[in-house]
Amino acid sequence: MNTQESRRGLPLVICAPSGAGKTTLVNRLTAEFSLDFSVSCTTRAPRGAERDGVEYFFLSRETFLERRDRGEFAEWAEVHGNFYGTPLQPVREHLAEGRDMLFDIDVQGAAQLALTLPEARFVFILPPSLEVLEQRLRGRGTDGEDAIRLRLANARKEIMESHWFHALIVNDDLDQAYDELRAFYVASRLHPSLRPRLARAVCG
Amino acid sequence: MNTQESRRGLPLVICAPSGAGKTTLVNRLTAEFSLDFSVSCTTRAPRGAERDGVEYFFLSRETFLERRDRGEFAEWAEVHGNFYGTPLQPVREHLAEGRDMLFDIDVQGAAQLALTLPEARFVFILPPSLEVLEQRLRGRGTDGEDAIRLRLANARKEIMESHWFHALIVNDDLDQAYDELRAFYVASRLHPSLRPRLARAVCG
Repeated sequence: MNTQESRRGLPLVICAPSGAGKTTLVNRLTAEFSLDFSVSCTTRAPRGAERDGVEYFFLSRETFLERRDRGEFAEWAEVHGNFYGTPLQPVREHLAEGRDMLFDIDVQGAAQLALTLPEARFVFILPPSLEVLEQRLRGRGTDGEDAIRLRLANARKEIMESHWFHALIVNDDLDQAYDELRAFYVASRLHPSLRPRLARAVCG
Repeated sequence: MNTQESRRGLPLVICAPSGAGKTTLVNRLTAEFSLDFSVSCTTRAPRGAERDGVEYFFLSRETFLERRDRGEFAEWAEVHGNFYGTPLQPVREHLAEGRDMLFDIDVQGAAQLALTLPEARFVFILPPSLEVLEQRLRGRGTDGEDAIRLRLANARKEIMESHWFHALIVNDDLDQAYDELRAFYVASRLHPSLRPRLARAVCG
């Protein structure tokens, strides 16, 4: 039975407030499973060794806005005067080839993606408490007082909006949080919509 | 943070054709996690050491039909002249206490339960092929030729109706199938609807 070959890829969206430990969890997931990151478009200039089509697709502002107005982005946002967006066509091609994709976007982008890519699955990672989050942000030593206050206010807002996600994971114990993230990914891949030929393949 | 205490229980429905290996998988799941089986009502007479309220709630036909007509069953069916049904009220009380429940019912019962208990999660276990299923059924040596033919026809029908389940698991390799069932259970427990006070508990 060649049921694996006919799989559709899973779009997996992982959101978390800054300091919740998302990067560590995502690194463990991509070390265990074959998941491609979606490459975003941006109007900001390349930095350092960034290559077009690898870290980002670098577009002029004019091109970005034209493509946005044609509905070519699964989600987009303007941040500090630069535009960022997830192009839908490469995502659809990837998924059609049966390759799972990971989206590293914020809650606002995730909300847009839920409309443009309805088969996507959404998981939100929470800190055990805002106090713990504050301790972690201070422990990093990279943010000033104002930046920490802003991150905490954003975290509270995002957490209170997380009710529409498919799963909530509290990152208190890292191993348990990873077990839950892994379970969510494995379980999401079992959905019949990603395995459209399975029943017929089994029944012969 | 006492977020665990405010969990709602998960209703988990596992369906599979006879011979797909459901019992082995369910036994592994209940050995690892605390899951209660739903106790059904029936109009058939107790057998052997069966106790009322443990294996079944034993009801008269009259009482069963009265309760059925009052909408007290999450799902019900008549099988060989006897009635069987899952009473909704004890299920709701169990779930409200945060205890997860396992439902061992057929696809028709599952379809009813999807309407009466909309938060339930449904997983379907498939054999790798109908040929393998036939070999397994013959290997048991418990069914005659007619019974095997009937089981295979039912299996084909159920598999072709499995598209509405939340997850499909092919039981080819038992360890992989268990990893998937476990993942589905763990992931299903992460849904925000089962953790209604989590966001507020985190935000303080």
